[in-house]
Amino acid sequence: MIAEKLKHLFYPASVAVIGASDNFDKLGYHVMKSLVGSPSVRIYPVNPKAAKIWDIEAYPSLDDISGEVDLAVVVVPAAQVPETLHRCGRKGVKGVVLITAGFKEIEDASGEDLQNEIAGIASLYEMPIIGPNTFGFVNRTGGVNASFTSEFSLLEKGGVALISQSGGVCHLCGFLAIEQRVGVSALMSLGNRVNVDFPEALRFFAEEDGATRVIALYIEGVAEPRRLLDLARSLSGKKPIIAYKAGRNEKGDSASRFHTGSLAGSHPVWRGALRQSRILEVTSVEEMIDTAKVLDSCALAEGGRIAVLSGQAGPGIIAADALEAEGLSLARFSPATQERINAILPPVAIRTNPVDMGPAWYNPKNIIEILNAVVDDEATDGVLFLAIYASANLGLAAAMEEYMRKSKPFTKPVVVIFSAPPGIWDEAVRKLDRKKGLAVLPTPERAARAVRNLWGAHVLSLQPR
Amino acid sequence: MIAEKLKHLFYPASVAVIGASDNFDKLGYHVMKSLVGSPSVRIYPVNPKAAKIWDIEAYPSLDDISGEVDLAVVVVPAAQVPETLHRCGRKGVKGVVLITAGFKEIEDASGEDLQNEIAGIASLYEMPIIGPNTFGFVNRTGGVNASFTSEFSLLEKGGVALISQSGGVCHLCGFLAIEQRVGVSALMSLGNRVNVDFPEALRFFAEEDGATRVIALYIEGVAEPRRLLDLARSLSGKKPIIAYKAGRNEKGDSASRFHTGSLAGSHPVWRGALRQSRILEVTSVEEMIDTAKVLDSCALAEGGRIAVLSGQAGPGIIAADALEAEGLSLARFSPATQERINAILPPVAIRTNPVDMGPAWYNPKNIIEILNAVVDDEATDGVLFLAIYASANLGLAAAMEEYMRKSKPFTKPVVVIFSAPPGIWDEAVRKLDRKKGLAVLPTPERAARAVRNLWGAHVLSLQPR
Repeated sequence: MIAEKLKHLFYPASVAVIGASDNFDKLGYHVMKSLVGSPSVRIYPVNPKAAKIWDIEAYPSLDDISGEVDLAVVVVPAAQVPETLHRCGRKGVKGVVLITAGFKEIEDASGEDLQNEIAGIASLYEMPIIGPNTFGFVNRTGGVNASFTSEFSLLEKGGVALISQSGGVCHLCGFLAIEQRVGVSALMSLGNRVNVDFPEALRFFAEEDGATRVIALYIEGVAEPRRLLDLARSLSGKKPIIAYKAGRNEKGDSASRFHTGSLAGSHPVWRGALRQSRILEVTSVEEMIDTAKVLDSCALAEGGRIAVLSGQAGPGIIAADALEAEGLSLARFSPATQERINAILPPVAIRTNPVDMGPAWYNPKNIIEILNAVVDDEATDGVLFLAIYASANLGLAAAMEEYMRKSKPFTKPVVVIFSAPPGIWDEAVRKLDRKKGLAVLPTPERAARAVRNLWGAHVLSLQPR
Repeated sequence: MIAEKLKHLFYPASVAVIGASDNFDKLGYHVMKSLVGSPSVRIYPVNPKAAKIWDIEAYPSLDDISGEVDLAVVVVPAAQVPETLHRCGRKGVKGVVLITAGFKEIEDASGEDLQNEIAGIASLYEMPIIGPNTFGFVNRTGGVNASFTSEFSLLEKGGVALISQSGGVCHLCGFLAIEQRVGVSALMSLGNRVNVDFPEALRFFAEEDGATRVIALYIEGVAEPRRLLDLARSLSGKKPIIAYKAGRNEKGDSASRFHTGSLAGSHPVWRGALRQSRILEVTSVEEMIDTAKVLDSCALAEGGRIAVLSGQAGPGIIAADALEAEGLSLARFSPATQERINAILPPVAIRTNPVDMGPAWYNPKNIIEILNAVVDDEATDGVLFLAIYASANLGLAAAMEEYMRKSKPFTKPVVVIFSAPPGIWDEAVRKLDRKKGLAVLPTPERAARAVRNLWGAHVLSLQPR
């Protein structure tokens, strides 16, 4: 039931903003700002004191709207929330984003009482509620930004869904995702979780949302971990699931207990449980963003034998170190592959792994040919490719991008570093990134970790139940 | 002798570019491009076939220049290098940047022979040579870019000197430094190291260069490690030295042997030796850049008890986790500090460490007061401050920047995360960063590692000899 309604909630044709405002200092202003940038959505601002909000006809109350309302975004004060939710229920609203805070997360017991009351109302009308104490969600696939952060519309569309227990962490990851050009299907913060908890959101993005290819979870603590873990395990093999579990240490744990009203649980137990549930654990926000990006864009690595192709020796050495530190190894090319490389590179270069691409550097055809040679090699499970700008290779990224357009997608992961001053390669890299099984990351060490996780995702989904 | 001449080399009043060119495809073009952006330097383009290069009077040969030449940047083909260096020596050039490649780094034995020959010439004239096979150096303090990468002039001026064995890694780190607003005194690649090796460069930046406050080394392998390590140890307590040692694993090691003509050595031995020499080891390019930045901008941490101040709970939990994972602990505030915080924050917020700054979020005076309260606490050795943008806190960074201008410098390290979409806080953060003992880093986990290294630097220089 809830799952069916979530479709309307995440892909609404119509949205009522209860507490819509023209005053910049109100959250109702920022929710409106986000939504007016969502062209496919019919918006109903609700405000008893204004005829128009954001130049759109406003309604004194939900009852005054004659059309259907799929989603209600609620930003009224906490005390008004129960009555507002009753109106939503009676109106047949399919789902609610309850941004208002002041519930279970506050120290005062009245907050918990109020949250219990709204849980009862949600249950009465069988109405999914995201929140309370959430910033909302953005669904880039559907072009709906139902949050107070209009800038999330800067996210590139793609396959990554992030389900976060914390709005702050969701913002941190979202801004990193903008910067790193991660393709996003949706971002959401669960907030206090009345009846849309990790399992409900996970099931939606795993089973109902075709655009989502990778699911990333930021978890502080959950009341019923088994329900989440069993679901993840049952979904294993469908879409990779990665998780960043916070509250790992004593003090963090105690803070997360306050924050979300649930015990975080001991970390070693979580670590094992995540693994058993085929969830890939990550341990930093950057690792989460990087891993989600490569899982969305690249083939999985079916083993740990990696080729390093670098235009400069030093970064190649760093990459080789980093790969081995991650438990991966440098692939030993087959004689046939070595012959293909030797036909392109002169003996002055190091032609074994890590390959010194220097002499091929001014010819994109040669670069792509070497790339294809190592991808084709049965002894190679993935490629780490490094290009560092220097004045003489100015045209490299653009030439490679142009040549890549005609080439076939890589059947093994190709993770690429393009490092240059601002403005030099940005445009070409933006076009190249996340195409043909290739993904761009910022440093050799982060690329090595991401490749390890592409192997880890393969291992996790292959493990016998 | 060499040390004295290095002053003229790094701070030249006059530079001859031997092989200067107006042809974009030549390195001599790019060196000229870099130098014409160095206003304090008299430039002598040397080219037998042109009257002017880059619209500057050119000379057929070095001998035709009547004035003194402090620095010669050489980009002629390898075969012409010995004769060119003899001319430099006879002319009394103080130092040479030898960009030309094709020496010890190539597989052909002729490369090594040629390098031995130029080593003899360097010795004959007692003339320091950076390179061969280097991109050169940029001295931001002196405003001299003697490299083929003009974009390094985008680096902000500051106290970090990077001495790199690899030009590629120097570029990678330099571009990260531009992005992360690291303040740089100088960047250089040693290349094949004829007579300017790690010890010579390290001694120059440690003892002769007043602008340099932190020295970062990227090391692949050195022929005489003891000479470097003993020097670093003798410099201990002067300026923090950090090192990224590559070639840690077997294959990387073998690649670095080829690349720089020296054995890399086993990593466990290096790790212990670095520590004994009071060199702080880092293990990624980002850690190197982040650590150099905080060492340049912040006080050292005299202990591991850290305060976390966060505007949002989730990122604070991540920071607390990350600090404990790095071996640091959350400070327990003294009763007096707790009283100061309680006077500002209402009981609804978590006022113990990690502190939920939420209710202080719209008042920079309160934010700075809490910051000062925890810095003043004897039970606190440093602060991690996290601000994540959401529509309602748009003015936060600017307000904080304005208020900070009047406040006293922090006597303990304050590492700050400002996370926002592009363009939102950039200007204010740029003004705030690296001032008053505060440094901005991108994520809580990287900040935690940097704070650990601020403590590590303190521990290393305090260790009894």
